[in-house]
Amino acid sequence: METETKRLGKTPSIRRMSLYLNRLKAYQEKGIEIVTSNDIAADIDVLPIVVKKDLQLVEPPTKKRAGYIVNGTIKAITAFLGWDKQKSAILIGVGHLGSALLGYRGFPGLTFVAAFDTDVKKIGTTIHNIPVLNISNLSDFLKKRKIEIAVLTMPSEHAQKIVDLLTQGNILAIWNFTRAKIHVPPHVALQREDLSAGLAELSAKIKNNQ
Amino acid sequence: METETKRLGKTPSIRRMSLYLNRLKAYQEKGIEIVTSNDIAADIDVLPIVVKKDLQLVEPPTKKRAGYIVNGTIKAITAFLGWDKQKSAILIGVGHLGSALLGYRGFPGLTFVAAFDTDVKKIGTTIHNIPVLNISNLSDFLKKRKIEIAVLTMPSEHAQKIVDLLTQGNILAIWNFTRAKIHVPPHVALQREDLSAGLAELSAKIKNNQ
Repeated sequence: METETKRLGKTPSIRRMSLYLNRLKAYQEKGIEIVTSNDIAADIDVLPIVVKKDLQLVEPPTKKRAGYIVNGTIKAITAFLGWDKQKSAILIGVGHLGSALLGYRGFPGLTFVAAFDTDVKKIGTTIHNIPVLNISNLSDFLKKRKIEIAVLTMPSEHAQKIVDLLTQGNILAIWNFTRAKIHVPPHVALQREDLSAGLAELSAKIKNNQ
Repeated sequence: METETKRLGKTPSIRRMSLYLNRLKAYQEKGIEIVTSNDIAADIDVLPIVVKKDLQLVEPPTKKRAGYIVNGTIKAITAFLGWDKQKSAILIGVGHLGSALLGYRGFPGLTFVAAFDTDVKKIGTTIHNIPVLNISNLSDFLKKRKIEIAVLTMPSEHAQKIVDLLTQGNILAIWNFTRAKIHVPPHVALQREDLSAGLAELSAKIKNNQ
Protein backbone atom coordinates (compact mmCIF):
# COMPACT_ATOMS: atom_id res chain seq x y z
CA MET A 1 0.00 0.00 0.00
CA GLU A 2 2.73 2.42 1.00
CA THR A 3 4.65 1.77 -2.19
CA GLU A 4 1.53 2.50 -4.20
CA THR A 5 0.91 5.77 -2.36
CA LYS A 6 4.53 6.76 -2.80
CA ARG A 7 4.39 5.89 -6.48
CA LEU A 8 1.24 7.97 -6.96
CA GLY A 9 2.92 10.91 -5.26
CA LYS A 10 5.96 10.73 -7.53
CA THR A 11 4.07 10.17 -10.76
CA PRO A 12 3.44 13.85 -11.65
CA SER A 13 7.14 14.60 -10.99
CA ILE A 14 8.24 11.85 -13.35
CA ARG A 15 5.72 12.96 -15.98
CA ARG A 16 7.26 16.45 -15.87
CA MET A 17 10.81 15.14 -16.54
CA SER A 18 10.35 15.12 -20.32
CA LEU A 19 9.14 18.72 -20.09
CA TYR A 20 12.24 19.75 -18.11
CA LEU A 21 14.39 17.98 -20.66
CA ASN A 22 12.78 19.92 -23.51
CA ARG A 23 13.22 23.25 -21.76
CA LEU A 24 16.82 22.49 -20.75
CA LYS A 25 17.67 21.52 -24.33
CA ALA A 26 16.19 24.81 -25.49
CA TYR A 27 18.46 26.66 -22.99
CA GLN A 28 21.42 24.60 -24.22
CA GLU A 29 20.72 25.58 -27.84
CA LYS A 30 20.72 29.23 -26.76
CA GLY A 31 24.10 28.76 -25.06
CA ILE A 32 22.72 29.25 -21.53
CA GLU A 33 24.87 27.30 -19.03
CA ILE A 34 23.11 27.83 -15.69
CA VAL A 35 19.41 28.35 -14.92
CA THR A 36 17.53 28.84 -11.66
CA SER A 37 14.41 26.98 -10.58
CA ASN A 38 12.59 30.31 -11.00
CA ASP A 39 13.64 30.47 -14.67
CA ILE A 40 12.47 26.92 -15.33
CA ALA A 41 9.27 27.42 -13.32
CA ALA A 42 8.30 30.54 -15.27
CA ASP A 43 9.04 28.75 -18.49
CA ILE A 44 6.82 25.74 -17.90
CA ASP A 45 4.15 27.29 -15.67
CA VAL A 46 4.65 25.46 -12.37
CA LEU A 47 5.82 26.80 -8.98
CA PRO A 48 9.61 27.04 -8.34
CA ILE A 49 9.22 24.70 -5.34
CA VAL A 50 7.76 22.06 -7.68
CA VAL A 51 10.80 22.34 -9.96
CA LYS A 52 13.14 22.04 -6.95
CA LYS A 53 11.39 18.99 -5.55
CA ASP A 54 11.17 17.30 -8.95
CA LEU A 55 14.84 17.82 -9.75
CA GLN A 56 15.85 16.45 -6.33
CA LEU A 57 14.82 13.07 -7.75
CA VAL A 58 17.67 13.08 -10.28
CA GLU A 59 21.33 12.60 -9.51
CA PRO A 60 23.74 15.40 -8.53
CA PRO A 61 26.01 17.18 -9.38
CA THR A 62 23.54 19.26 -11.33
CA LYS A 63 23.10 22.16 -8.94
CA LYS A 64 25.39 25.03 -7.99
CA ARG A 65 24.54 27.92 -5.74
CA ALA A 66 23.74 29.99 -8.83
CA GLY A 67 21.34 27.38 -10.22
CA TYR A 68 21.17 24.19 -12.23
CA ILE A 69 24.00 23.39 -14.62
CA VAL A 70 22.14 22.95 -17.90
CA ASN A 71 24.36 20.24 -19.46
CA GLY A 72 24.65 18.27 -16.22
CA THR A 73 20.94 18.38 -15.52
CA ILE A 74 20.14 17.18 -19.05
CA LYS A 75 22.49 14.24 -18.52
CA ALA A 76 21.07 13.52 -15.06
CA ILE A 77 17.43 13.45 -16.22
CA THR A 78 18.34 11.37 -19.28
CA ALA A 79 20.12 8.84 -17.07
CA PHE A 80 17.33 8.90 -14.45
CA LEU A 81 14.83 7.83 -17.13
CA GLY A 82 17.25 5.39 -18.78
CA TRP A 83 17.00 7.41 -21.99
CA ASP A 84 20.79 7.33 -22.39
CA LYS A 85 20.40 3.77 -23.66
CA GLN A 86 18.32 3.39 -26.80
CA LYS A 87 15.57 0.75 -26.40
CA SER A 88 14.07 -1.34 -29.19
CA ALA A 89 10.31 -1.22 -29.48
CA ILE A 90 7.57 -2.91 -31.49
CA LEU A 91 4.06 -1.66 -32.06
CA ILE A 92 0.99 -3.87 -32.26
CA GLY A 93 -1.92 -2.63 -34.37
CA VAL A 94 -1.24 -0.28 -37.26
CA GLY A 95 -4.46 1.78 -37.27
CA HIS A 96 -4.65 5.58 -37.24
CA LEU A 97 -3.09 5.95 -33.81
CA GLY A 98 -0.50 3.22 -34.38
CA SER A 99 0.65 4.76 -37.68
CA ALA A 100 0.91 8.18 -36.06
CA LEU A 101 3.03 6.86 -33.21
CA LEU A 102 5.35 5.08 -35.69
CA GLY A 103 5.87 8.41 -37.44
CA TYR A 104 6.17 10.50 -34.28
CA ARG A 105 9.74 11.71 -33.82
CA GLY A 106 9.42 12.88 -30.25
CA PHE A 107 9.97 9.70 -28.20
CA PRO A 108 13.42 9.83 -26.59
CA GLY A 109 15.34 6.60 -26.13
CA LEU A 110 12.87 4.55 -28.15
CA THR A 111 13.47 3.04 -31.59
CA PHE A 112 10.68 1.21 -33.40
CA VAL A 113 12.09 -1.83 -35.19
CA ALA A 114 8.85 -3.45 -36.38
CA ALA A 115 5.07 -3.21 -36.27
CA PHE A 116 2.58 -6.07 -36.26
CA ASP A 117 -0.94 -6.35 -37.64
CA THR A 118 -3.49 -8.94 -38.78
CA ASP A 119 -4.51 -7.09 -41.95
CA VAL A 120 -3.02 -8.75 -45.06
CA LYS A 121 -3.18 -5.40 -46.87
CA LYS A 122 -0.80 -3.92 -44.31
CA ILE A 123 1.49 -6.93 -43.76
CA GLY A 124 4.62 -6.67 -45.91
CA THR A 125 4.40 -2.91 -46.30
CA THR A 126 6.43 -0.32 -44.40
CA ILE A 127 5.08 2.65 -42.48
CA HIS A 128 7.55 5.48 -41.90
CA ASN A 129 10.24 2.96 -42.93
CA ILE A 130 9.17 0.47 -40.27
CA PRO A 131 8.17 -2.97 -41.59
CA VAL A 132 4.65 -4.25 -40.82
CA LEU A 133 4.83 -7.96 -39.99
CA ASN A 134 2.21 -10.68 -39.52
CA ILE A 135 1.04 -10.89 -35.93
CA SER A 136 1.26 -14.69 -36.19
CA ASN A 137 5.05 -14.30 -36.40
CA LEU A 138 5.24 -12.30 -33.17
CA SER A 139 6.55 -15.10 -30.93
CA ASP A 140 9.20 -16.16 -33.45
CA PHE A 141 10.28 -12.56 -33.87
CA LEU A 142 10.70 -12.13 -30.11
CA LYS A 143 12.88 -15.25 -29.97
CA LYS A 144 15.27 -13.78 -32.55
CA ARG A 145 15.33 -10.12 -31.53
CA LYS A 146 15.82 -8.48 -28.16
CA ILE A 147 12.85 -6.13 -27.80
CA GLU A 148 12.42 -4.06 -24.66
CA ILE A 149 9.14 -2.18 -25.20
CA ALA A 150 5.83 -3.10 -26.84
CA VAL A 151 3.33 -0.38 -27.70
CA LEU A 152 -0.29 -1.57 -27.87
CA THR A 153 -2.60 0.22 -30.30
CA MET A 154 -4.79 -2.67 -31.44
CA PRO A 155 -8.47 -3.30 -30.56
CA SER A 156 -8.93 -3.78 -26.80
CA GLU A 157 -10.52 -7.22 -27.03
CA HIS A 158 -7.29 -8.83 -28.29
CA ALA A 159 -5.02 -7.10 -25.80
CA GLN A 160 -4.54 -9.77 -23.11
CA LYS A 161 -3.83 -12.56 -25.62
CA ILE A 162 -1.10 -10.48 -27.25
CA VAL A 163 0.24 -9.37 -23.88
CA ASP A 164 0.69 -13.01 -22.88
CA LEU A 165 2.74 -13.64 -26.03
CA LEU A 166 4.79 -10.53 -25.33
CA THR A 167 5.61 -11.47 -21.75
CA GLN A 168 6.48 -15.02 -22.83
CA GLY A 169 8.76 -13.33 -25.37
CA ASN A 170 10.66 -11.56 -22.56
CA ILE A 171 9.48 -8.04 -23.21
CA LEU A 172 10.46 -5.60 -20.41
CA ALA A 173 7.69 -3.05 -20.72
CA ILE A 174 4.25 -2.52 -22.20
CA TRP A 175 2.85 0.87 -23.14
CA ASN A 176 -0.88 0.31 -23.39
CA PHE A 177 -2.86 2.78 -25.53
CA THR A 178 -5.92 0.49 -25.58
CA ARG A 179 -8.75 0.63 -23.06
CA ALA A 180 -8.21 -2.97 -21.98
CA LYS A 181 -7.21 -3.72 -18.43
CA ILE A 182 -4.29 -6.08 -18.90
CA HIS A 183 -2.34 -8.26 -16.52
CA VAL A 184 1.42 -8.66 -16.58
CA PRO A 185 3.93 -10.45 -14.34
CA PRO A 186 5.52 -8.16 -11.72
CA HIS A 187 8.84 -7.89 -13.59
CA VAL A 188 7.13 -6.33 -16.62
CA ALA A 189 6.64 -2.55 -16.48
CA LEU A 190 3.17 -1.43 -17.53
CA GLN A 191 1.99 2.03 -18.46
CA ARG A 192 -1.56 2.81 -19.49
CA GLU A 193 -2.01 5.80 -21.77
CA ASP A 194 -5.34 7.57 -21.98
CA LEU A 195 -5.37 10.32 -24.59
CA SER A 196 -8.65 11.57 -23.15
CA ALA A 197 -7.07 12.33 -19.75
CA GLY A 198 -5.66 15.59 -21.10
CA LEU A 199 -9.03 16.40 -22.66
CA ALA A 200 -10.64 15.85 -19.24
CA GLU A 201 -8.21 18.36 -17.72
CA LEU A 202 -8.90 20.87 -20.49
CA SER A 203 -12.66 20.36 -20.14
CA ALA A 204 -12.53 20.96 -16.38
CA LYS A 205 -10.65 24.21 -17.04
CA ILE A 206 -13.29 25.31 -19.58
CA LYS A 207 -16.01 24.68 -16.99
CA ASN A 208 -14.04 26.65 -14.37
CA ASN A 209 -13.85 29.62 -16.75
CA GLN A 210 -17.59 29.71 -17.38
CA MET B 1 -0.24 30.43 -5.13
CA GLU B 2 -2.93 28.59 -3.24
CA THR B 3 -5.06 28.16 -6.33
CA GLU B 4 -2.07 26.75 -8.19
CA THR B 5 -1.32 24.27 -5.39
CA LYS B 6 -4.96 23.25 -5.24
CA ARG B 7 -5.09 22.84 -8.99
CA LEU B 8 -1.96 20.68 -8.99
CA GLY B 9 -3.49 18.52 -6.28
CA LYS B 10 -6.70 17.95 -8.22
CA THR B 11 -5.10 17.33 -11.60
CA PRO B 12 -4.49 13.58 -11.23
CA SER B 13 -8.10 13.15 -10.05
CA ILE B 14 -9.44 14.95 -13.08
CA ARG B 15 -7.14 12.98 -15.39
CA ARG B 16 -8.63 9.76 -13.98
CA MET B 17 -12.22 10.82 -14.73
CA SER B 18 -12.11 9.56 -18.31
CA LEU B 19 -10.83 6.22 -16.99
CA TYR B 20 -13.74 5.97 -14.51
CA LEU B 21 -16.11 6.82 -17.31
CA ASN B 22 -14.73 3.99 -19.47
CA ARG B 23 -15.00 1.44 -16.66
CA LEU B 24 -18.50 2.57 -15.66
CA LYS B 25 -19.66 2.29 -19.28
CA ALA B 26 -18.24 -1.24 -19.38
CA TYR B 27 -20.27 -2.08 -16.21
CA GLN B 28 -23.33 -0.50 -17.80
CA GLU B 29 -22.94 -2.65 -20.92
CA LYS B 30 -22.82 -5.73 -18.68
CA GLY B 31 -26.03 -4.64 -16.94
CA ILE B 32 -24.34 -3.91 -13.60
CA GLU B 33 -26.28 -1.21 -11.73
CA ILE B 34 -24.23 -0.62 -8.57
CA VAL B 35 -20.46 -0.91 -8.00
CA THR B 36 -18.30 -0.31 -4.96
CA SER B 37 -15.13 1.76 -4.82
CA ASN B 38 -13.31 -1.55 -4.25
CA ASP B 39 -14.68 -2.92 -7.55
CA ILE B 40 -13.61 0.17 -9.46
CA ALA B 41 -10.24 0.33 -7.70
CA ALA B 42 -9.42 -3.29 -8.54
CA ASP B 43 -10.45 -2.67 -12.11
CA ILE B 44 -8.24 0.31 -12.77
CA ASP B 45 -5.37 -0.44 -10.40
CA VAL B 46 -5.59 2.39 -7.88
CA LEU B 47 -6.42 2.32 -4.15
CA PRO B 48 -10.13 2.37 -3.13
CA ILE B 49 -9.52 5.59 -1.13
CA VAL B 50 -8.31 7.26 -4.36
CA VAL B 51 -11.54 6.27 -6.13
CA LYS B 52 -13.61 7.61 -3.21
CA LYS B 53 -11.79 10.93 -3.10
CA ASP B 54 -11.89 11.37 -6.86
CA LEU B 55 -15.61 10.66 -7.11
CA GLN B 56 -16.34 13.11 -4.29
CA LEU B 57 -15.49 15.79 -6.84
CA VAL B 58 -18.56 14.99 -8.97
CA GLU B 59 -22.15 15.77 -8.06
CA PRO B 60 -24.44 13.53 -5.99
CA PRO B 61 -26.74 11.61 -5.99
CA THR B 62 -24.44 8.95 -7.33
CA LYS B 63 -23.73 6.99 -4.16
CA LYS B 64 -25.87 4.64 -2.11
CA ARG B 65 -24.77 2.67 0.91
CA ALA B 66 -24.24 -0.33 -1.35
CA GLY B 67 -21.99 1.61 -3.74
CA TYR B 68 -22.05 3.93 -6.72
CA ILE B 69 -25.09 3.94 -9.00
CA VAL B 70 -23.51 3.20 -12.38
CA ASN B 71 -25.89 5.27 -14.56
CA GLY B 72 -25.96 8.20 -12.16
CA THR B 73 -22.18 8.28 -11.79
CA ILE B 74 -21.71 8.22 -15.57
CA LYS B 75 -24.06 11.20 -15.86
CA ALA B 76 -22.35 13.01 -12.99
CA ILE B 77 -18.83 12.62 -14.42
CA THR B 78 -20.02 13.57 -17.91
CA ALA B 79 -21.64 16.73 -16.53
CA PHE B 80 -18.64 17.50 -14.31
CA LEU B 81 -16.39 17.56 -17.40
CA GLY B 82 -18.99 19.35 -19.56
CA TRP B 83 -18.98 16.34 -21.90
CA ASP B 84 -22.80 16.35 -21.98
CA LYS B 85 -22.57 19.27 -24.41
CA GLN B 86 -20.76 18.53 -27.67
CA LYS B 87 -18.05 21.09 -28.44
CA SER B 88 -16.82 22.09 -31.90
CA ALA B 89 -13.10 21.82 -32.45
CA ILE B 90 -10.59 22.68 -35.14
CA LEU B 91 -7.11 21.25 -35.56
CA ILE B 92 -4.10 23.22 -36.77
CA GLY B 93 -1.37 21.29 -38.59
CA VAL B 94 -2.26 18.10 -40.43
CA GLY B 95 0.97 16.12 -40.02
CA HIS B 96 1.22 12.54 -38.71
CA LEU B 97 -0.04 13.38 -35.24
CA GLY B 98 -2.70 15.80 -36.48
CA SER B 99 -4.10 13.24 -38.94
CA ALA B 100 -4.18 10.58 -36.24
CA LEU B 101 -6.06 12.82 -33.83
CA LEU B 102 -8.62 13.69 -36.56
CA GLY B 103 -9.25 9.97 -37.01
CA TYR B 104 -9.23 9.07 -33.32
CA ARG B 105 -12.73 8.18 -32.16
CA GLY B 106 -12.09 8.27 -28.44
CA PHE B 107 -12.50 11.96 -27.57
CA PRO B 108 -15.80 12.44 -25.73
CA GLY B 109 -17.71 15.67 -26.23
CA LEU B 110 -15.45 16.87 -29.02
CA THR B 111 -16.38 17.14 -32.71
CA PHE B 112 -13.78 18.19 -35.26
CA VAL B 113 -15.38 20.47 -37.86
CA ALA B 114 -12.29 21.53 -39.79
CA ALA B 115 -8.52 21.28 -39.94
CA PHE B 116 -6.07 23.94 -41.14
CA ASP B 117 -2.69 23.70 -42.83
CA THR B 118 -0.30 25.72 -44.99
CA ASP B 119 0.47 22.88 -47.43
CA VAL B 120 -1.28 23.42 -50.78
CA LYS B 121 -1.25 19.64 -51.35
CA LYS B 122 -3.38 19.15 -48.24
CA ILE B 123 -5.65 22.20 -48.54
CA GLY B 124 -8.96 21.27 -50.20
CA THR B 125 -8.71 17.59 -49.29
CA THR B 126 -10.53 15.84 -46.46
CA ILE B 127 -8.96 13.65 -43.76
CA HIS B 128 -11.33 11.23 -42.04
CA ASN B 129 -14.13 13.30 -43.65
CA ILE B 130 -12.88 16.52 -42.08
CA PRO B 131 -12.06 19.31 -44.57
CA VAL B 132 -8.51 20.72 -44.60
CA LEU B 133 -8.67 24.49 -45.07
CA ASN B 134 -6.06 27.16 -45.79
CA ILE B 135 -4.59 28.57 -42.60
CA SER B 136 -4.87 32.06 -44.12
CA ASN B 137 -8.67 31.67 -43.86
CA LEU B 138 -8.56 30.89 -40.12
CA SER B 139 -9.69 34.32 -38.87
CA ASP B 140 -12.57 34.51 -41.36
CA PHE B 141 -13.64 30.98 -40.43
CA LEU B 142 -13.72 31.86 -36.73
CA LYS B 143 -15.93 34.89 -37.45
CA LYS B 144 -18.51 32.68 -39.16
CA ARG B 145 -18.42 29.57 -36.96
CA LYS B 146 -18.60 29.19 -33.20
CA ILE B 147 -15.57 27.04 -32.33
CA GLU B 148 -14.84 26.14 -28.72
CA ILE B 149 -11.59 24.14 -28.87
CA ALA B 150 -8.44 24.41 -31.01
CA VAL B 151 -5.99 21.50 -31.12
CA LEU B 152 -2.41 22.52 -31.99
CA THR B 153 -0.30 19.98 -33.87
CA MET B 154 1.74 22.27 -36.11
CA PRO B 155 5.46 23.10 -35.83
CA SER B 156 6.25 24.84 -32.50
CA GLU B 157 7.76 27.97 -34.02
CA HIS B 158 4.42 29.09 -35.47
CA ALA B 159 2.39 28.35 -32.36
CA GLN B 160 2.10 31.77 -30.71
CA LYS B 161 1.14 33.56 -33.95
CA ILE B 162 -1.68 31.07 -34.52
CA VAL B 163 -2.73 31.21 -30.86
CA ASP B 164 -3.14 34.99 -31.12
CA LEU B 165 -5.46 34.54 -34.12
CA LEU B 166 -7.39 31.87 -32.22
CA THR B 167 -7.92 33.98 -29.11
CA GLN B 168 -8.93 36.98 -31.27
CA GLY B 169 -11.41 34.57 -32.87
CA ASN B 170 -13.03 33.88 -29.46
CA ILE B 171 -11.86 30.32 -28.98
CA LEU B 172 -12.54 29.00 -25.43
CA ALA B 173 -9.77 26.45 -25.11
CA ILE B 174 -6.45 25.41 -26.61
CA TRP B 175 -5.09 21.87 -26.47
CA ASN B 176 -1.39 22.27 -27.21
CA PHE B 177 0.43 19.19 -28.55
CA THR B 178 3.42 21.29 -29.64
CA ARG B 179 6.46 21.98 -27.47
CA ALA B 180 5.97 25.72 -27.64
CA LYS B 181 5.26 27.66 -24.48
CA ILE B 182 2.28 29.73 -25.48
CA HIS B 183 0.51 32.63 -23.82
CA VAL B 184 -3.27 33.03 -23.70
CA PRO B 185 -5.59 35.53 -22.01
CA PRO B 186 -6.92 34.29 -18.61
CA HIS B 187 -10.38 33.45 -19.99
CA VAL B 188 -8.91 30.92 -22.44
CA ALA B 189 -8.34 27.41 -21.06
CA LEU B 190 -4.96 25.94 -21.96
CA GLN B 191 -3.83 22.35 -21.78
CA ARG B 192 -0.35 21.23 -22.77
CA GLU B 193 -0.07 17.64 -23.93
CA ASP B 194 3.26 15.84 -23.83
CA LEU B 195 3.11 12.37 -25.34
CA SER B 196 6.52 11.63 -23.85
CA ALA B 197 5.26 12.11 -20.27
CA GLY B 198 3.79 8.60 -20.31
CA LEU B 199 7.01 7.24 -21.78
CA ALA B 200 8.91 8.91 -18.91
CA GLU B 201 6.66 7.09 -16.43
CA LEU B 202 7.15 3.79 -18.23
CA SER B 203 10.91 4.32 -18.40
CA ALA B 204 11.11 5.05 -14.67
CA LYS B 205 9.24 1.78 -14.02
CA ILE B 206 11.65 -0.15 -16.25
CA LYS B 207 14.59 1.29 -14.28
CA ASN B 208 12.88 0.37 -10.98
CA ASN B 209 12.54 -3.23 -12.18
CA GLN B 210 16.21 -3.58 -13.07
